[in-house]
Amino acid sequence: MVDSRTCARERGDDEVCGAISDMLARIGDKWSLLIVTTLGEGPLRFNELRRQITDISQKMLSSTLKVLERDGLVSRTVIPSVPPQVDYALTELGRELLQPVSALAQWTAANTSRIMAARVTYDARANARATG
Amino acid sequence: MVDSRTCARERGDDEVCGAISDMLARIGDKWSLLIVTTLGEGPLRFNELRRQITDISQKMLSSTLKVLERDGLVSRTVIPSVPPQVDYALTELGRELLQPVSALAQWTAANTSRIMAARVTYDARANARATG
Repeated sequence: MVDSRTCARERGDDEVCGAISDMLARIGDKWSLLIVTTLGEGPLRFNELRRQITDISQKMLSSTLKVLERDGLVSRTVIPSVPPQVDYALTELGRELLQPVSALAQWTAANTSRIMAARVTYDARANARATG
Repeated sequence: MVDSRTCARERGDDEVCGAISDMLARIGDKWSLLIVTTLGEGPLRFNELRRQITDISQKMLSSTLKVLERDGLVSRTVIPSVPPQVDYALTELGRELLQPVSALAQWTAANTSRIMAARVTYDARANARATG
């Protein structure tokens, strides 16, 4: 297995390592994370997704879904009703990703107040240094 | 606990939710991930870090370390030797973050070939549609 450390140190297969960095950057994208965690509870239509992720624009939701679909993480199913209905769901791969993504999101949510407190301390110290 | 889903749906405390989104975006930053996983094996000096993360520029390493220090994830210790030595290490908070970050990095590394294969399939289908 090529892991991120191996890539960092040994410069293995450049294509694979580039893809890992790309994927880490993508997964960290907050919209991808929110879409993956939201679809973790079951398939949703575009407008349902948009209602649940309140801050996302239609354009951003549409483009992020396309990226997730291209990566094989989300499936898009057109149901030939009138009007046609489009369902988005996690693929098997997306469902596997859900576990580490949820763990990271939960850690972040649980520790945001500690991080914010650290920032306050750091800034106060930097200000004291600047004016002292 | 405010989690990312709650933020998405209920618009709780805007400051806290904003910080969670910020943090998810930051943690997903590939340099932060690589620094956190690299320091996971023990404290390192600036130049040692730079040697292990081969692609990072001096400027990017320096600015990312500052962000991680401000967030309370990395500590910076100046040892008054000649020349002075500066050690970077994970704080307790950073060490706690290591677990979900490693899980995500390992998942990504283990599944990069599946994601790359999905992209090839998606692009081939899109090309067939465009030319068909």
